[in-house]
Amino acid sequence: MSIEFFDNFKNSKDYVQSLDRGLQVLQSFTTENQLLSVSEVASITGLSRPTARRILLTLEYLGFVFANHGKYALTPKIVTLSNAYLSAQSSSWQFAIPFMQNFANTTGESSSISILDGDKIIYVARVSKKRIMSINLDIGSQLPAFATSMGQVLLAHLPEGELREILKDLNLVKFTENTVESKEELITILKDVQEKGWAGVDQQFENGLRSIAVPIINQQGKVVAAINCSVHAGRVSTEELRNNFLPLLKETSRKIGDLCPIRSY
Amino acid sequence: MSIEFFDNFKNSKDYVQSLDRGLQVLQSFTTENQLLSVSEVASITGLSRPTARRILLTLEYLGFVFANHGKYALTPKIVTLSNAYLSAQSSSWQFAIPFMQNFANTTGESSSISILDGDKIIYVARVSKKRIMSINLDIGSQLPAFATSMGQVLLAHLPEGELREILKDLNLVKFTENTVESKEELITILKDVQEKGWAGVDQQFENGLRSIAVPIINQQGKVVAAINCSVHAGRVSTEELRNNFLPLLKETSRKIGDLCPIRSY
Repeated sequence: MSIEFFDNFKNSKDYVQSLDRGLQVLQSFTTENQLLSVSEVASITGLSRPTARRILLTLEYLGFVFANHGKYALTPKIVTLSNAYLSAQSSSWQFAIPFMQNFANTTGESSSISILDGDKIIYVARVSKKRIMSINLDIGSQLPAFATSMGQVLLAHLPEGELREILKDLNLVKFTENTVESKEELITILKDVQEKGWAGVDQQFENGLRSIAVPIINQQGKVVAAINCSVHAGRVSTEELRNNFLPLLKETSRKIGDLCPIRSY
Repeated sequence: MSIEFFDNFKNSKDYVQSLDRGLQVLQSFTTENQLLSVSEVASITGLSRPTARRILLTLEYLGFVFANHGKYALTPKIVTLSNAYLSAQSSSWQFAIPFMQNFANTTGESSSISILDGDKIIYVARVSKKRIMSINLDIGSQLPAFATSMGQVLLAHLPEGELREILKDLNLVKFTENTVESKEELITILKDVQEKGWAGVDQQFENGLRSIAVPIINQQGKVVAAINCSVHAGRVSTEELRNNFLPLLKETSRKIGDLCPIRSY
C-alpha cells in the first residue's frame, strides 16, 4: 500500500470516520484510566462530548464497555477481539513446537517464540521442560522489546527507518540495575546483536532472569520471529548459555525457519 | 441499563452503525478464517460488498488489518485493544498475589484466579511455587468454563437466566475421556458445585491435569471470581486435593474476598 494512500485516506470517501473514532475511544481506556466519564473520553480522544457519548452508548450496547455511576469501563468482551488473532498466531506456529520440545528436553530449560509489535514482543509459542501440561497459557503475552533478548533480536533486524520510528517514542523503563539506560546504549547493543546474530540479556528485564535469542529466518531470508532460551540466573551462567545452549538454539531456529513459508508480514 | 434500552437502541439516534459494523468485521476473522477477501467478509457479516470494502480499507489505514494478494488478515495491533483491559484486570487483582503465594508455598502447587466471560474463563492472576520469575505471562488466557474447576464454580453461581443463555449455545467439546458429555450432566454437576461450594475437575480438560476451585465472594456477598489449585494427576490424588488443599484454598479465598470492594460487575 502506497504512501499516498496513507496520506490521503482520511479525505477519501472510503474512510469510515465513526469506526476510527470508536476504536480511538476503546484505546482511551488504559491501566491508569480504567474508569472514564464521557467528558474524560472526549478530552482524551479530542472528540466532542456528544460524539463521545454516542460512541460509548453504542459500545455499551455491543457489550464492549459497561457503565457504572457515570463512568465507563471495558468488559472482558474486548479480549475476544484479540483472541482470534492470538489463536491464529498460536496455531500458525504449532509446527515449531516439536523442535522447541526437543530443545527443552535436551537443555532442561524453556524456549519461546515471539514476534514484534511496535516496541513490544508478543509470545506466539512456548515450551517448557518443567511444564507438565500441554495447554499453553502464555500465548499473547506482551513484553517490552528493548529489555528482552527476543526483542533485541527483532529490533536489530528492522529496517533502519522503522527502528528510528520505534526509538523516537521509546520509553526506557528502568526495570533492574542492568536495564539499558539510554537510546545510544541500545543502538550500540542492537548493532552488536545484528553483527553476531544473537542477543544475550542478563537480568535487564527482571532480576534472576537471563536469556539468549536468535532470529527465525524464513525461506525468503526474512526475519519473521525470534526464539529464545530463558533460564534462572542462579542456575545457568551467561557462559554456559552461550557455549552450551546457543549452538542448539541456532540449530533449532534454522530447522523452524526452513519450514517458514514466505509471508508478507 | 434497561431492557428497553437494548431493544430500541438500534433505532435511536445515538446508535453509531459504522462502529457496530466495523467491530463485526474485526470479529469475522477467526482461527479458521485468518485470511478473508472483501467478499468473504461481506458474506460472513451480512454487509454489502462496498461497505465491507470501506471498513477493511479503514481498518488497514488504522493498522488493525493488512492486505496481501487480495486477502485481509488481522495485525498484532488488535492485541493492544485488549491489553489495556487485561493489565487493568491484572493490576486490580494484584492485592491477591501474597495470599496466593502463601497458598503456593504451603502446598507446593500453583494457584490461579479467573473471571467468567460468557462460556469462557479468563485468567487474571496466577502464582506458581515452581515459577522462579514474577512476570506473569499467563494473564488473559481463556479456557472453556464447562471443563475447568474455576469455570464450573463461576457457572454454578450465575443467575438461572444467564446460565440458561450460556448453556443454550454451549459446544461441549470432548477434550478427554472425562469431559462432561451432555448439558444434563453439566447441570447436575453445577447444582452439586453450588451446594457444596467448590468444584473438583479430574482430567476433564486435559489428561494429567486435576484441579479444585472455590468462589471468591466480595464484601457484598457476590461471587466475583474463582480461585483454583491445579496439580499433576500423577502426583496428587483427588482425595489429597480435597482433604489437604481444599481447606487452605477456602481460607485463601475468604481472605481475598474480604478485601474485594463492591463493584457492579
